[in-house]
Amino acid sequence: MSDHSDISGMTDQKYSVIFQPHNKTIEVNAGENLIRAAMEAGVHINASCGGEGVCGKCRIILEKGELEGGTDKLSNEDREKGYYLACLSKIRSDVVVRVPVESNVDSSVLNIAASPRHTAKIKQVRLDTLKEQGMLIPPVEKKYLELPVPTTQDNLADVTRLLNFLKITHDEHRLVVDLNVIREIPDILRKDDFKVTATIVRPVREDGKNQIVNLEPGDTTDRNFAVAMDIGTTTIYGEVLDLNSGEILSQYGDFNGQISYGEDVISRIMFAEKEGGLLTLQKKVVETINKVLEKIIKRANIKKEEITTITLAGNSTMTQLLLAINPGYIRRAPYVPASILYPPFSASEIGINLGHHAIALLYPGVSSYVGGDIVAGVMGSGMYQTEKLTLFMDIGTNAEIVIGNKDWMACTACSAGPAFEGGGITFGMRAAKGAIEDFSIDPVTYEPMIVTKGSVRPKGICGSGLITIVAVLFENGLINNRGKFNQDLKTDRIREKEGIWEYVLVWKDATQIDRDITITEPDIDNLIRAKGAMYSGAMTLLEEVGLSITDIEQIILAGGFGSYVDLAKAMTIGLLPETPPEKVIYLGNGSLLGAKMSSFTNLLRRNVGEVVKMMTNFELSETPSYMDHYVSALFLPHTEMNYFPKLQERMNARKSG
Amino acid sequence: MSDHSDISGMTDQKYSVIFQPHNKTIEVNAGENLIRAAMEAGVHINASCGGEGVCGKCRIILEKGELEGGTDKLSNEDREKGYYLACLSKIRSDVVVRVPVESNVDSSVLNIAASPRHTAKIKQVRLDTLKEQGMLIPPVEKKYLELPVPTTQDNLADVTRLLNFLKITHDEHRLVVDLNVIREIPDILRKDDFKVTATIVRPVREDGKNQIVNLEPGDTTDRNFAVAMDIGTTTIYGEVLDLNSGEILSQYGDFNGQISYGEDVISRIMFAEKEGGLLTLQKKVVETINKVLEKIIKRANIKKEEITTITLAGNSTMTQLLLAINPGYIRRAPYVPASILYPPFSASEIGINLGHHAIALLYPGVSSYVGGDIVAGVMGSGMYQTEKLTLFMDIGTNAEIVIGNKDWMACTACSAGPAFEGGGITFGMRAAKGAIEDFSIDPVTYEPMIVTKGSVRPKGICGSGLITIVAVLFENGLINNRGKFNQDLKTDRIREKEGIWEYVLVWKDATQIDRDITITEPDIDNLIRAKGAMYSGAMTLLEEVGLSITDIEQIILAGGFGSYVDLAKAMTIGLLPETPPEKVIYLGNGSLLGAKMSSFTNLLRRNVGEVVKMMTNFELSETPSYMDHYVSALFLPHTEMNYFPKLQERMNARKSG
Repeated sequence: MSDHSDISGMTDQKYSVIFQPHNKTIEVNAGENLIRAAMEAGVHINASCGGEGVCGKCRIILEKGELEGGTDKLSNEDREKGYYLACLSKIRSDVVVRVPVESNVDSSVLNIAASPRHTAKIKQVRLDTLKEQGMLIPPVEKKYLELPVPTTQDNLADVTRLLNFLKITHDEHRLVVDLNVIREIPDILRKDDFKVTATIVRPVREDGKNQIVNLEPGDTTDRNFAVAMDIGTTTIYGEVLDLNSGEILSQYGDFNGQISYGEDVISRIMFAEKEGGLLTLQKKVVETINKVLEKIIKRANIKKEEITTITLAGNSTMTQLLLAINPGYIRRAPYVPASILYPPFSASEIGINLGHHAIALLYPGVSSYVGGDIVAGVMGSGMYQTEKLTLFMDIGTNAEIVIGNKDWMACTACSAGPAFEGGGITFGMRAAKGAIEDFSIDPVTYEPMIVTKGSVRPKGICGSGLITIVAVLFENGLINNRGKFNQDLKTDRIREKEGIWEYVLVWKDATQIDRDITITEPDIDNLIRAKGAMYSGAMTLLEEVGLSITDIEQIILAGGFGSYVDLAKAMTIGLLPETPPEKVIYLGNGSLLGAKMSSFTNLLRRNVGEVVKMMTNFELSETPSYMDHYVSALFLPHTEMNYFPKLQERMNARKSG
Repeated sequence: MSDHSDISGMTDQKYSVIFQPHNKTIEVNAGENLIRAAMEAGVHINASCGGEGVCGKCRIILEKGELEGGTDKLSNEDREKGYYLACLSKIRSDVVVRVPVESNVDSSVLNIAASPRHTAKIKQVRLDTLKEQGMLIPPVEKKYLELPVPTTQDNLADVTRLLNFLKITHDEHRLVVDLNVIREIPDILRKDDFKVTATIVRPVREDGKNQIVNLEPGDTTDRNFAVAMDIGTTTIYGEVLDLNSGEILSQYGDFNGQISYGEDVISRIMFAEKEGGLLTLQKKVVETINKVLEKIIKRANIKKEEITTITLAGNSTMTQLLLAINPGYIRRAPYVPASILYPPFSASEIGINLGHHAIALLYPGVSSYVGGDIVAGVMGSGMYQTEKLTLFMDIGTNAEIVIGNKDWMACTACSAGPAFEGGGITFGMRAAKGAIEDFSIDPVTYEPMIVTKGSVRPKGICGSGLITIVAVLFENGLINNRGKFNQDLKTDRIREKEGIWEYVLVWKDATQIDRDITITEPDIDNLIRAKGAMYSGAMTLLEEVGLSITDIEQIILAGGFGSYVDLAKAMTIGLLPETPPEKVIYLGNGSLLGAKMSSFTNLLRRNVGEVVKMMTNFELSETPSYMDHYVSALFLPHTEMNYFPKLQERMNARKSG
């Protein structure tokens, strides 16, 4: 979640890479790193320095085509032989590369390598579809009006003139006018001879009021922008949307300024309960919001006064802190939030740096631990409209689970602990530069292939990397189904240190931290407990509604973490039930997606009230079977191996292979 | 209107006073001043020092009963003879007094003395009637609720809990909750174990929303107070109302702090158009409101947080200045106000020093010059419910006129000039201490009898005094129907000075200002133009709706000035059409009355929108016949004497007498 970049990325140009002797072909974007391409193809190349050419182990031979870089750190002799360091090579054409035998002690490797990584396929808002279906009806509209100029025979009050005209010529009814508009109306009407643009906020219910929140002289209807924002515990993402064209004009994310007062919601709540803590946290989140706004407004090349609405989605604690509502009762049984629905309010009222007419819309939540971010994901993903029985999961320190379809939904949340975010792991870290995010192993030598964020020397392990590492260690028999190391394997990478068994991922010299980077049994145990909590949460919820895990027809993974996790690996460790990849949707930032969709179409805002009512909340602490499910899930992947038939098959094949 | 006192006054004890040789009896309150009693009885006693015993002319003989004071400034000889100075005597029992012959040169005086003054009979809100009729339904109600305490099986959000309970156990629907309430709800619910009092603002329309604006721990339903306030150009009056008992707990008035920036609305508007002027005036009026609030809250012995609503009524300029809305277009043709209806808003939003939950309700107006104060009067007086064809007048610098009944209403305003408020009059002054407010004349000697506000030596003439003086001078033949002095009368009080004819009301020695206080022909001319503007306004309005002045069945006089004016005298000069006194209602402060009524019953708030729509506004400047009516009205009482048959009769009697 640290990738604060624009929507950008590589060019659309694709190249094919053929790996020999595996004879595996993969298509990649131009400029892709060769190690990453190998990882994606399921081809193992020893590599442990992350891409800095330090370890020098990832040499391959270019047989055809063009690679860029990759030879800088090699001796002339190696260059002449056609060697490249894979970790430093960028793909510049269709290529054929040969992996030297040193990385393939046994050809059997070719067959039992991990299945290819599933690239995150983020479901995007289909804006064109919205427009085609006539659904581009934002909650805030602008109307250009040429009012009749008053005379002594027609000297109605300015507000009456405006309302009468809207009623008669625009068939607008149930209108109310904000006090701020009344305050400015005499001067604004007369700035451009009674030609004005009115900004109208549509009601949530069709029988509600249409609220006139702003008036501008002249015709400004072509300038109607919205902001969608995800208020995450860790990161705040914002986008500027053009409500006329349906385009996203800019995007930016930054760390939530509250982060120095606690990493997770519980520590934030505890800080909020201290003297002055609540207002400090409120101020900090608003500061970050304003920082993000400043960036996206500048990048979109608009004026802040042209923004008519800001839709915010966050979990219940983030929402309460944003409004300076004491969140203390969220963390104490019986876990009661202040509210699930919030009325629209003026964004400037809480210090958000927008015009006084900009309306803030907060996504409603369901309960203390199933908040507006999850509801936004349910709305944005279209889960609320599907017939398919869907398992929606947002994986993080707190994992939220929604099960259901358009007719019913059940939801719950469980505390997975911080393992997925690198917490409680010896070398755990956030998904920042230097974090090991991908990993494979030579099944004979047990030598690793490591990919780091930013292709720099490793500093530690992020959550998605941890899942991959544990899955790979398990599938290759380095650990058993209780996460204990096989002490009999012939490798110096598995060792005991001060009574704790561990695997050395990166030797000290190839790291940034001048220490061996390892994964220990306690680390693995932490991960097992985290994934066990999530899986058993889903199991318990299913059981409560009389279904089984095998009934699931579709999985939606939301959240930044969900976008990075390797689906196959998550199934290998039993974090997710085994499901065909085509039935899994990586939603990306569901919270931002829902906020964006609601900004574009008021229909979503109208539906969300019903959806929230439909979502039945279960407290796992109140469900006795949860503990049983949890204990059963404290294995890799689970005590019930029949839920994981494909994995069973692969493991049988490996044993017999 | 300078009487900033509580509702207090004399005791209820009544005494009778018999004046001899007139043989006139009058009943007065215990403690009443004897000169005032004589004035009320229509008995002339020479008196021109206002009640300080300076002129020594008002000696009477006490024949029976008890007077207090009145002998202090007399010689022992006079005391032994039983003399008292009437102006210093307070009535302490039933008394018989004899007016010495010196004041009654001719017994004919006894018959042609001015008719008795009509005491102002202010129509009070009939609160008991309201209660009896079940109409004591304030726009803001409190409900005490004992909510179920949350458990892990029932951990609904706090707001949901509150709303569900209100729906199920109190049949309350269409509820919305203020963001401020959501902000505080977690802590407030838990202060007294989920026992709370909710403050609910009722909608104007029955199908509107019921807005929860406040929550308090425990049962506070017995503490529900409102403030009614009249925002006058000159004075701001406020009252604290107990919404449970229907009682008025306290009252206070103070000069509008804007007064130093201009006496009338036009000069205020001109100041508002200067740099920074608008905000200065807004600040000043809010300062006065807060000063009045502080007094009335203290006197009522309540806490400001216990006030749930403040209803304000003022003219359109005062309303716009209160909200800092540029009033510039009110004074320029075509005279357009910003709005006639204003939404409810938080009083604290504009700096009013009440709790953030206190809702401000502004009385709607009709046009730039028929504002919320007039509409409040129409509502408070019940004019909107009567079958009788009613002439409603609020007399001041700007005079507003409403004609109609429960089925239709027409209204207009005219600028009468400042004469009614003492402006443009040589010795004109506000109705403050030392202002001549009552006057009679000895028809033979032309010596005056003067009563001043506060019974102190005269300083000048207030508006109601001016009307009485001109009426008395006219009925006694000192001036003709064009306001010119009869230069042939034998009195040194009528004189020419620097080419201007005048009547000396008080000789220099008896004044506070060390100059003769006089009334001049230009003064009289100013008054005639002022009353002519008003009368012709009413005539024109009647003509526009196809009626005549003789169709009027009832007159309602509103405004402070209307409470002080002597009805008979106002008819004598032709300010009002001649009407039997029993058909005239002195409303007093109609603006405050309407604000008070609306505070007690929401039905009025519901009706007022319809009434405002029904009130058809006429611009006199757009009505050509106005000028003709005006010219005809520039006589005492009018060119058409047949509209004033009783006056004609009296004048004929006097001529023949």
